[in-house]
Amino acid sequence: MLDRCLGARRVRQIQRALRHGKITLLCLFLTVLVLRGYLGAGKFGTPEQDFKEIKDHLYFRKRAEPHRVLEEAQTTTTETTTENKNYNTFDPTKIAVDEEGDDEKPDPSKPYSLGPKISDWDEQRTKWLANNPGFPNFIAPNKPKVLLVTGSSPKPCENPVGDHYLLKSIKNKIDYCRLHGIEIFYNMALLDAEMAGFWAKLPLIRKLLLSHPEIEFLWWMDSDAMFTDMAFEVPWERYKDHNFVMHGWNEMVYDEKNWIGLNTGSFLLRNCQWSLDMLDAWSPMGPKGKIRDDAGKILTRELKGRPVFEADDQSAMVYLLGTQRDKWGDKVYLESAYYLHGYWGILVDRYEEMIQNYHPGLGDHRWPLVTHFVGCKPCGKFGDYSVERCLKQMDRAFNFGDNQILQIYGFTHKSLASRRVKRIRNDTSNPLEVKDDLGLLHPSFKAVKVSSSSWSVLTTVQ
Amino acid sequence: MLDRCLGARRVRQIQRALRHGKITLLCLFLTVLVLRGYLGAGKFGTPEQDFKEIKDHLYFRKRAEPHRVLEEAQTTTTETTTENKNYNTFDPTKIAVDEEGDDEKPDPSKPYSLGPKISDWDEQRTKWLANNPGFPNFIAPNKPKVLLVTGSSPKPCENPVGDHYLLKSIKNKIDYCRLHGIEIFYNMALLDAEMAGFWAKLPLIRKLLLSHPEIEFLWWMDSDAMFTDMAFEVPWERYKDHNFVMHGWNEMVYDEKNWIGLNTGSFLLRNCQWSLDMLDAWSPMGPKGKIRDDAGKILTRELKGRPVFEADDQSAMVYLLGTQRDKWGDKVYLESAYYLHGYWGILVDRYEEMIQNYHPGLGDHRWPLVTHFVGCKPCGKFGDYSVERCLKQMDRAFNFGDNQILQIYGFTHKSLASRRVKRIRNDTSNPLEVKDDLGLLHPSFKAVKVSSSSWSVLTTVQ
Repeated sequence: MLDRCLGARRVRQIQRALRHGKITLLCLFLTVLVLRGYLGAGKFGTPEQDFKEIKDHLYFRKRAEPHRVLEEAQTTTTETTTENKNYNTFDPTKIAVDEEGDDEKPDPSKPYSLGPKISDWDEQRTKWLANNPGFPNFIAPNKPKVLLVTGSSPKPCENPVGDHYLLKSIKNKIDYCRLHGIEIFYNMALLDAEMAGFWAKLPLIRKLLLSHPEIEFLWWMDSDAMFTDMAFEVPWERYKDHNFVMHGWNEMVYDEKNWIGLNTGSFLLRNCQWSLDMLDAWSPMGPKGKIRDDAGKILTRELKGRPVFEADDQSAMVYLLGTQRDKWGDKVYLESAYYLHGYWGILVDRYEEMIQNYHPGLGDHRWPLVTHFVGCKPCGKFGDYSVERCLKQMDRAFNFGDNQILQIYGFTHKSLASRRVKRIRNDTSNPLEVKDDLGLLHPSFKAVKVSSSSWSVLTTVQ
Repeated sequence: MLDRCLGARRVRQIQRALRHGKITLLCLFLTVLVLRGYLGAGKFGTPEQDFKEIKDHLYFRKRAEPHRVLEEAQTTTTETTTENKNYNTFDPTKIAVDEEGDDEKPDPSKPYSLGPKISDWDEQRTKWLANNPGFPNFIAPNKPKVLLVTGSSPKPCENPVGDHYLLKSIKNKIDYCRLHGIEIFYNMALLDAEMAGFWAKLPLIRKLLLSHPEIEFLWWMDSDAMFTDMAFEVPWERYKDHNFVMHGWNEMVYDEKNWIGLNTGSFLLRNCQWSLDMLDAWSPMGPKGKIRDDAGKILTRELKGRPVFEADDQSAMVYLLGTQRDKWGDKVYLESAYYLHGYWGILVDRYEEMIQNYHPGLGDHRWPLVTHFVGCKPCGKFGDYSVERCLKQMDRAFNFGDNQILQIYGFTHKSLASRRVKRIRNDTSNPLEVKDDLGLLHPSFKAVKVSSSSWSVLTTVQ
């Protein structure tokens, strides 16, 4: 009817204008939402506020999945095509298809196992430590021997700059670990083809714990996580009665079973029988193919907010803890007092504010221990955020941490965006009288005790 | 006259054939020479044989210069264009031209200095060590505290795969250093704009020595050098009366002043007054621009076999030692009994033979401690060797070293060319009874002495 009043042409014009108008309004709406996401929230400190910010960011993710490491997977002949269609999973040890032969096919009738069952690890370990005083599990009282474990693919990144960021990331870890007397293991090998992708860390962790009884704590850290507080020492004594420390919130895990109620991109695991049992309980959802796919469906159904994709280690942990709290909960510490893992989206725009108002050593929202670039994936082609924003912020986070190292030597970056450094303290002919403001030159947490044997075989078997 | 006998056309044909023939002969000649270079020499152990091989390889280098690190320089606004035309120098801290401002211009009337003169460093250091027993300069008797220093540019490599090889290289160093109780400092900052390029290590080394009196030896290692003997421990006690250890040959340096009579891509420098003086004596040829260019001419004239290019730190060291042996020679150890630096060209094709006939722990031509990819420059665009050969051989060298780490855990690469790993030892429920063949799991050179204070402040002040 309208066209008879206004004329067909006019009606078409109006219809076109309306369509354009709708599109314009939609774009405007999306822009506002995205801007709101970027600008972030105000204060931090409660899981709800942290969490709301993370949820907003995640709302617009292209493919919602936990991205705890920095890489783009390559297809191997043994990978399912489904896996690659849905998302780009991190596989720290993906193997080129052009290499000789396939891995041995696992026997489908045998349930997956991380290795031969061990039930007396605490006893084995105690005996070994007593017989090997040259390899103590404590460097000093309240200072356990820690191995930081991380890694990436043995293949060059698909995205040319990806390897550059992996390089900066490992330099960042080398710096923190040198200051804190922590050793590093950088993995580039896939030890178990069935546990490819984010699950690859489980066989690796088990292997390292069992090979190195002198390690008291193993610290897994994703390659897309960087240290941004060089002065913060983990409060080891806080965990004397716990075996597994992750950043997270009890309510989000045990009450809500929220899939991001904890983060497995940076965690501490004590070397003990309990941990071996935990790894065994954690692993069943991991074997790739039908097991992992079906497990993914269960996790999506059972966890709050979890999108559809194959089982990942983080969701599996939420599920495990959420359903078996009585069995595991007393030895798990969900830490939210400092950023053992800090989601980058709510931190990186505040670095200047932090520099203005705070100082290193706090480890929390005021000066985060770890800034973790979940979802960025500079090594691959498809991240969940704009490449430009990710890389720019990763440079800033790197420089934010690097400044704390450089100031030891009297230098700093010209700005958080700049690779260049400038001098902030002149050299003198009495270099040992220099006061480095942060006390990182010879930090107390690195000092060794050289004349006592009483603590050297201290164990905290759980 | 010839054309009247044979006809003009025929003469032209003959001329063309002759030209083609000459070209063919030239190509054949070059091919033979290159092949001879690749095939390498037979036995090793004498500097003449090693040296001859190196000379043959160098003969065909596009731009003859020492390439001790793995990078392609970027032009900064403060760099001279001459520098970039002649060669591609490594500048571990080259700065992007798009960044704010220039560095401060040095005062041309003041002679270059690495820093304020210090004359009592041994005394300062002894006092500090006595007052800081928590930071001993010896880990165990005959085991000094060592800091391995390396680095690369803060910019992404021009060649996309370059950063991937930097990443593998640092992983390789992390592995060796973890086994040997050595800390790592990975530098990505240019501390002194005048000393850019290969000279950048001098201000860095001085800064680190003076900041860390607990370091007994600083081990500089280029980013294009990799550890290929994970079991070899440097014979520290051999150097108890020396302060500076480089791979090289006395005759080549002191008698011939041969520009590759020693190598500054991997060296040990004791933390003492003598070393500060050495750095001061070494540095004058370094400041970029006229000083470095003119010094380059002197070095080309004075050293045997040195091509034309600006002064580099290695040539300057040969010149310094060759002309001032009395002053420095007694504290310099030119080591040729093992490959503190091992030129890749004469090593990489022999890895399979080494695996067949020898074992790790030898450190010499039978199983080189270090394989150093001088001239490869995967980070840049223009290396001196084919990119394909360099990358392929770097992968092999990496895997050769990595196998020694993987075997600790029961794995090995499927071949020296393969990123994939395979199991060589099954897991058991008694992991601590495993014998790792190379004894690298808990090596004796890593064991700490936990109950003695007599050695902890041992100094070897020279």
